[in-house]
Amino acid sequence: MDLVNHQIRLAARPSGLPTPSDWAHTEEAVPEPAEGQILVRVSHLSVDPAMRGWMNDQPSYLPPVGINEVMRALGAGEVIASRHPGFTVGDHVTGAFGVQEYALSDGDGVLTVDPSSAGLSTYLSALGMTGMTAYFGLFDVGQLKDGETVLVSGAAGAVGSIVGQLAKIKGCRVVGIAGGAEKCAWLTGELGFDAALDHRTDGLGRRLREATPDGVDVFFDNVGGPVLDAGLARLTLRARVVLCGAISQYNSGTVAGPSNYLSLLVNRARMEGFIVFDYADRYADATAEMAGWLKAGRLRSREDVVTGTVADFPDTLLKLFRGENTGKLVLEIH
Amino acid sequence: MDLVNHQIRLAARPSGLPTPSDWAHTEEAVPEPAEGQILVRVSHLSVDPAMRGWMNDQPSYLPPVGINEVMRALGAGEVIASRHPGFTVGDHVTGAFGVQEYALSDGDGVLTVDPSSAGLSTYLSALGMTGMTAYFGLFDVGQLKDGETVLVSGAAGAVGSIVGQLAKIKGCRVVGIAGGAEKCAWLTGELGFDAALDHRTDGLGRRLREATPDGVDVFFDNVGGPVLDAGLARLTLRARVVLCGAISQYNSGTVAGPSNYLSLLVNRARMEGFIVFDYADRYADATAEMAGWLKAGRLRSREDVVTGTVADFPDTLLKLFRGENTGKLVLEIH
Repeated sequence: MDLVNHQIRLAARPSGLPTPSDWAHTEEAVPEPAEGQILVRVSHLSVDPAMRGWMNDQPSYLPPVGINEVMRALGAGEVIASRHPGFTVGDHVTGAFGVQEYALSDGDGVLTVDPSSAGLSTYLSALGMTGMTAYFGLFDVGQLKDGETVLVSGAAGAVGSIVGQLAKIKGCRVVGIAGGAEKCAWLTGELGFDAALDHRTDGLGRRLREATPDGVDVFFDNVGGPVLDAGLARLTLRARVVLCGAISQYNSGTVAGPSNYLSLLVNRARMEGFIVFDYADRYADATAEMAGWLKAGRLRSREDVVTGTVADFPDTLLKLFRGENTGKLVLEIH
Repeated sequence: MDLVNHQIRLAARPSGLPTPSDWAHTEEAVPEPAEGQILVRVSHLSVDPAMRGWMNDQPSYLPPVGINEVMRALGAGEVIASRHPGFTVGDHVTGAFGVQEYALSDGDGVLTVDPSSAGLSTYLSALGMTGMTAYFGLFDVGQLKDGETVLVSGAAGAVGSIVGQLAKIKGCRVVGIAGGAEKCAWLTGELGFDAALDHRTDGLGRRLREATPDGVDVFFDNVGGPVLDAGLARLTLRARVVLCGAISQYNSGTVAGPSNYLSLLVNRARMEGFIVFDYADRYADATAEMAGWLKAGRLRSREDVVTGTVADFPDTLLKLFRGENTGKLVLEIH
């Protein structure tokens, strides 16, 4: 093949928000798959807050992306060469292909998806890791019970918008926290949230008290910082705080710990983290359930799709931290 | 009766450490028990960090002590008059009698104890709420498994010293954090802890890494602040952080939240609060088990007994926050 593979590699470890000099734009010949490998042309990249953590040189649930390595990213695309018995040329697949146009894979963690049922970007959203994160975080870690009050922060983001809808499907009262009036209107309008609070305007604590007169039974936090503290102040007895992320803290040198954490003590409540990969053996069933809700119109998967090239990845990532996306941020590679 | 009842009442809500003007010393005639009541002469007062929280005017697991109310305290004493069918003059009892020499009670939450088996101060310690707090916090909230590594802060305090011993009984590796070399020597000497770290000397994080090469499976935190952060940095996968208290934070105007809380996320770990009163229906069985370990010499209940009058209560309380007690702090009223 004579194809060129454009890639984005991590050039330096950022301090604070990633800057252009933290990235290297490279190109190399597209390799041939060896026995047991496939070659994927990547058409969609999943752009996620967690990426910021992968760029740090500290032990975490995945090893840090190494300097000069292709940036880690989930993506979707098409198999264009296969020497793997499980995949055929023309298969549409998702996997951790990285920020590049072509990816070799041994098939580990690669799923074949049906593009006639849903667009590839949806397989990165409600029907992908985003949806699985919402599903297992809310139902397994959060131990959600019908009729409870659910608070979700980052509510207009990829995971948050699904969490709130899943809680509505379970008959819960759902309050979202998001940045900006437009996002809040989308949550209470199209998504059916019971209330949505803009954390960018004053008096979040007071407004949250008014919106949760019976307190918060499950708090699904994607944000951290003052938003986490506001939610902790509203916990009911034996409430569950699901720690999914802390987007407000990823680019600050020091993390602000939740000063209201003793609310966990007086309320006999729990704050628990999780990593969606631990639930891999249950993805298939959960995805089937999500697909049913999508088809029935009970769940909407909104993708905020940026069209460009892999060279647009660094800017697209920053949209997340500026709060510019609504729903799942995807970079579609033309 | 002609007896005078000396009492300590809450006069004002402290800001920071309680000062003498936050207390009122009152005396009144000892009342006669009405039908269904007992009169107890209080001989021992339990002096606990939680008392500081009860003095604040904010909703918690118990209502705040009201201004001009007798300060809430657990205690032990002898029934000197009874019009209650469950109690006889001469019975030794424990209960929430308050900081006073004589207490009326309707018997709710009052337990009869056997002073020939253990001293009354022990019924406020290993065989009382202190012991129950250690027992249910470690075994139920902490879900301790044999052979795990347990970290306990405030390790030379009332609850912490029992937590560590219970973990040793279960075959665990136990590391304590305490203030001062003398306390640490007691923990590794008499109590058999595997290691004890003085948080007053530098390099706690490094020393904790060395003392917990395989990480921390259960972290029982009584302290909060930098000690909590140090422990969070050592969590293993699916570790449990038992939130029992935060003595380092009770007298600061603002609570320092744990900036390492995202360790819960990457480690799929849990931080959970509890209140011992929720386990009241299991106290009898747990106390019997604790008594067996005491008798067998596998558990030591150390009480740090101050002898004085109720007027010594305000100063005695401050010993806790200065870290001057080793084991359970008790004010014995002569």
